[in-house]
Amino acid sequence: MYDGTLGVIGAIEAVRALRESGFSPRRSISVVMFTSEEPTRFGLSCIGSRLLVGALQTKALDDLKDASGVSFHEARNQAGYEGDISTVRLDAQSFSAFVELHIEQADVLETTGVNIGAVTHIAAPAAAEVTFEGSGGHAGSWLMKYRNDAGLAGAQLALAVERIALDRGDDCVATTGKFEVFPGAINSVPKIARLGIDVRDVNLERRDSALQDIEKEMMQIATLRNVTANFMVNNRDDPAACDGRVVNAVIEEAAELNLSFSQMVSRAYHDALFMAKQFPTGMIFVPCRKGVSHRPDEFVDEHDIHNGVAVLAGVLVRLAGEEKTEL
Amino acid sequence: MYDGTLGVIGAIEAVRALRESGFSPRRSISVVMFTSEEPTRFGLSCIGSRLLVGALQTKALDDLKDASGVSFHEARNQAGYEGDISTVRLDAQSFSAFVELHIEQADVLETTGVNIGAVTHIAAPAAAEVTFEGSGGHAGSWLMKYRNDAGLAGAQLALAVERIALDRGDDCVATTGKFEVFPGAINSVPKIARLGIDVRDVNLERRDSALQDIEKEMMQIATLRNVTANFMVNNRDDPAACDGRVVNAVIEEAAELNLSFSQMVSRAYHDALFMAKQFPTGMIFVPCRKGVSHRPDEFVDEHDIHNGVAVLAGVLVRLAGEEKTEL
Repeated sequence: MYDGTLGVIGAIEAVRALRESGFSPRRSISVVMFTSEEPTRFGLSCIGSRLLVGALQTKALDDLKDASGVSFHEARNQAGYEGDISTVRLDAQSFSAFVELHIEQADVLETTGVNIGAVTHIAAPAAAEVTFEGSGGHAGSWLMKYRNDAGLAGAQLALAVERIALDRGDDCVATTGKFEVFPGAINSVPKIARLGIDVRDVNLERRDSALQDIEKEMMQIATLRNVTANFMVNNRDDPAACDGRVVNAVIEEAAELNLSFSQMVSRAYHDALFMAKQFPTGMIFVPCRKGVSHRPDEFVDEHDIHNGVAVLAGVLVRLAGEEKTEL
Repeated sequence: MYDGTLGVIGAIEAVRALRESGFSPRRSISVVMFTSEEPTRFGLSCIGSRLLVGALQTKALDDLKDASGVSFHEARNQAGYEGDISTVRLDAQSFSAFVELHIEQADVLETTGVNIGAVTHIAAPAAAEVTFEGSGGHAGSWLMKYRNDAGLAGAQLALAVERIALDRGDDCVATTGKFEVFPGAINSVPKIARLGIDVRDVNLERRDSALQDIEKEMMQIATLRNVTANFMVNNRDDPAACDGRVVNAVIEEAAELNLSFSQMVSRAYHDALFMAKQFPTGMIFVPCRKGVSHRPDEFVDEHDIHNGVAVLAGVLVRLAGEEKTEL
């Protein structure tokens, strides 16, 4: 596993190397390890970073349960964390900057042969659930012209979701990652279709306009196919822009180390998305093999890890070594 | 439950009434109750009628298991049926005609206010499973233009299936009743889509040409979207035409009883589909409420049951009372 792990181990290694080199920072350096970035256990991503910057109300945690009914609080107590969770909230003055080293989770760096990505924007997802409902019926006895097939309404919407993203250019992506039909039997016309749609953009307005167009399209399809339709937004986070000072530190350090670099957008979700709400933030990307992530074959070359940690250490020198001035 | 039950109880009642009336048939009358018409437990429909006419090899039963691993043979032994199953095969001379009373399972009779359907053809299904496979990927980091989304290939094919059936007119129906995507997570581009497609027609050639067109369309979509595609036909039964003599007996009897009637196609699957392979066959349809079947709210009015049983009794008189001549 490199996703996440590289950021933690790499940061510890960068600090170790700086210490060994005798570097004395003007600002103190903290290594932050976030918990629950992936939404796997409690269905909510980035719980750690959301809490640190106050992007999540403490009481929202009270309702979180995992698949086997264990609550978030039970789980943290079992893990030995029993304190008042509202105290984790950081002051706005806690850090003058935040930098996260991460694998790219796409293959742009690999295919272009570039060593380092200096992230300028972090796209943010909105997640919607769409439900179409028709009359269903027997796949043999209901003539085509009398049907109101919820599955076909879903198929049309999934294709519209693709078109809506394509119309907005490269910075917008939209995905129908969940597509379920009920009853889901080969001899039944689908009565219900449930789609999970994820829309991301670095530009909030464009992202939300895509979401609106998807809802409009859903209504049109529902009218056309005589099915009912429901649109529910389950999650909607704001994209973040990285801080120019941090981005420049990444670029300058990469250049100084004779590494090739590109400014790029992070389209995946990161704790940096939330840290950026409160602190000047940047990210350092390194290539990962074929862009594969969240899979056992996720892999990052040792050489690229070395490059990433070296850039991180240099960025820390630049940011923590600078004169304390007004931010 | 009326689907199936009406045919069994209705036939027993018709024979009881004929006996009471003193009718003496020239040909003997048998009431046949088929087992396992619905494919629910062992995944194969019409096991009883298939075996009676030799449309299923006895050894095909050896591999049948239900969801909990109980074999067909274990289940029949537990139910007290221990004999040699190959002996159930009927001679071609066993019956001079076969008539099945059944609920329509669609709403044509109800909406047109007609009492009796005289079935002229029984459509037969072919079932295909299509699998598309692409590269999947992270819903955030894979740009639209680099994707090969198996779910969208599936969506296109489902819409094509509808168009292919519509192009062939009312007697052809095609349904994508199963539509599954994997991994099926909102933040993952679908890597695999699996569709279950059912195609039915009263005309075998047209049904099979629809199936071929679906396969062709699948190949084109696969090329267009750079995904792999697999087409597998899991089941393909032949449609059946009813016998003119039996259809006429239904029509004449309905007319004599002052009931309105229509000649119609049965688009659902019945044991009569297989009995027709060996015996001159007909079906009598009665209206069912809103065409609903296979659901707890399936309902047939008592008056319509009476009409159906009366027509069946009259048809039995016509067919079993006639002079024995060459068939």
